[in-house]
Amino acid sequence: MIIDCHGHYTTAPGALQAYRDTQLAAFKGGAGGAPPPDPRISDDEIRDSLEQAQLKLQRERGTDLTIFSPRASAMGHHLGDESVSSRWSRICNDLIYRVCKLFPRNFVGVCQLPQSPGVPPAHSAAELERCVRELGFIGCNLNPDPSGGHWNSPPLTDRHWYPLYQKMVELDVPAMVHVSASCNPNFHATGAHYLNADTTAFMQFLTSDLFKDFPTLRFVIPHGGGAVPFHWGRFRGLAQDLKRPPLEELLLNNVYFDTCVYHLPGIELLCKVVPLDNILFGSEMVGAVRGIDPRSGHHYDDTKRYIDALPLAAADRERLFSLNARRVYPRLTVRLAAVGA
Amino acid sequence: MIIDCHGHYTTAPGALQAYRDTQLAAFKGGAGGAPPPDPRISDDEIRDSLEQAQLKLQRERGTDLTIFSPRASAMGHHLGDESVSSRWSRICNDLIYRVCKLFPRNFVGVCQLPQSPGVPPAHSAAELERCVRELGFIGCNLNPDPSGGHWNSPPLTDRHWYPLYQKMVELDVPAMVHVSASCNPNFHATGAHYLNADTTAFMQFLTSDLFKDFPTLRFVIPHGGGAVPFHWGRFRGLAQDLKRPPLEELLLNNVYFDTCVYHLPGIELLCKVVPLDNILFGSEMVGAVRGIDPRSGHHYDDTKRYIDALPLAAADRERLFSLNARRVYPRLTVRLAAVGA
Repeated sequence: MIIDCHGHYTTAPGALQAYRDTQLAAFKGGAGGAPPPDPRISDDEIRDSLEQAQLKLQRERGTDLTIFSPRASAMGHHLGDESVSSRWSRICNDLIYRVCKLFPRNFVGVCQLPQSPGVPPAHSAAELERCVRELGFIGCNLNPDPSGGHWNSPPLTDRHWYPLYQKMVELDVPAMVHVSASCNPNFHATGAHYLNADTTAFMQFLTSDLFKDFPTLRFVIPHGGGAVPFHWGRFRGLAQDLKRPPLEELLLNNVYFDTCVYHLPGIELLCKVVPLDNILFGSEMVGAVRGIDPRSGHHYDDTKRYIDALPLAAADRERLFSLNARRVYPRLTVRLAAVGA
Repeated sequence: MIIDCHGHYTTAPGALQAYRDTQLAAFKGGAGGAPPPDPRISDDEIRDSLEQAQLKLQRERGTDLTIFSPRASAMGHHLGDESVSSRWSRICNDLIYRVCKLFPRNFVGVCQLPQSPGVPPAHSAAELERCVRELGFIGCNLNPDPSGGHWNSPPLTDRHWYPLYQKMVELDVPAMVHVSASCNPNFHATGAHYLNADTTAFMQFLTSDLFKDFPTLRFVIPHGGGAVPFHWGRFRGLAQDLKRPPLEELLLNNVYFDTCVYHLPGIELLCKVVPLDNILFGSEMVGAVRGIDPRSGHHYDDTKRYIDALPLAAADRERLFSLNARRVYPRLTVRLAAVGA
């Protein structure tokens, strides 16, 4: 089974975005602006939104299951307030739940958290618990910068985040570190903010003892880890200069990278420098880059092709495509057994 | 001749930092705190500070000339105010000038700019001109985030920066895009802020028409371009999705990367995906990572060894080590001729 650990519902029916627009307009209208009713989306609309996109691409590319979450760039934690973020997250997560119920062999859910700038991460624990215990989700996306590009929350290694980590550990679910849109004109969302957040989170982990406090806490750093594998020697050397343990010992029981790197040389480097046990197949489809690479004739984000091109043993391939995901997301196996997959 | 395009005076005599400490203390004391007198540093102290560091490493590694600038992490544009930054920059640049005068075959100068948050970049043009015309410098380091990690200046592609670019074009000198220390606890300076700034700047250039306005403006993006080469496919795809020209046409007459990537697989990737004409040899020594890699037995930042290990033709090697730097920094050749090197 080939498990794609990184897919977002970027093709959700238009009623979802219409709801969001109305919700934010009502918020801007102040206390007088009542929030709109929940969006009405039929099962057929959900099926249509996936059929010519994620499901078609799964078939064409030969992948089986996508760990699926709400559109990351639309989480928009910097918009509205805690109540707005809470309702928006619940609606987005409920929609993912419906996707997973309609296509239980194709999708398994990961939730958006109702983060909001200045609001304690503890307030996100209830939605995480609801999604895991009631909706069968297997993880969450955690935004290290709910301000959307101003980076004024404490680092992920600060005790500020600990109550949420306690809940993650209790539920035995990992988080993908994933920012949302950028409202800072310096940072293009998918071309800079996403990658910067990945690099930033890794270096925060490197300089902290977070995983002494939470030995079973697990993070997936998407987009191949941002700049980290390309600068693996720099990070090894920084750890050494800072008198930290080697990266393997310090981080690699807790930190994983996906394969959302859109060319073969990048995937080659990733799989050369990062231990294969720490790499999870992912494509981010349908996501950041939608075009076809004229050099290859295939979609940039068809990352399975790059991995297929590597001279890997069958057992290593199985780790990348399946076993590592099952290990990092232990609820995945339970979930698949429940649907007979 | 092997030219290292990226070296900072990280080993300057202690009197320099003592001056800075006193300067900042006086600033914090308010208008009553008079700035201290300029630091007194003898030629012998300068010689000593280089002999067992940069000069020794040049000899050991077989490099000839370092394009040398004040310590980047100490630029501290976020500290003090315009007047503090202006005096500090002048002192740091004058010290580089003395280094270059003492060792004209080993060092050529690049200046720090007296940037300060909220101050128009135009105010840095005079110091740039002084350094180039009076001190014989061949370029500058430009900080895209003088706030030190809050990223509240306009992007590098905003007209805000244009008066400085006009001066760069007039003088025919490039800028290395280089942030300084981070006062944002989210960003470790050398492990996150530096790399994020590199990625951020590249994506700003990708989404703008800056080089239509300034066809001869040139930037070196250090640290191998941050995350960019590792994600070259992503950036090619983003340019395509955004209906921009191919990267080669859009950026590669104006944007260059150095080789400050501290392991062989990273250098291999860089030289595989980025055209060799756009890569300048650099080491950042003595800089971000000072240790010896136990796997190789050599310094992480001895980047010449990685390039030596590549199967490059002699002509390509010469481009990387020398010709590209002479092309990007045209005043370098003039400078070298002046000292008979």
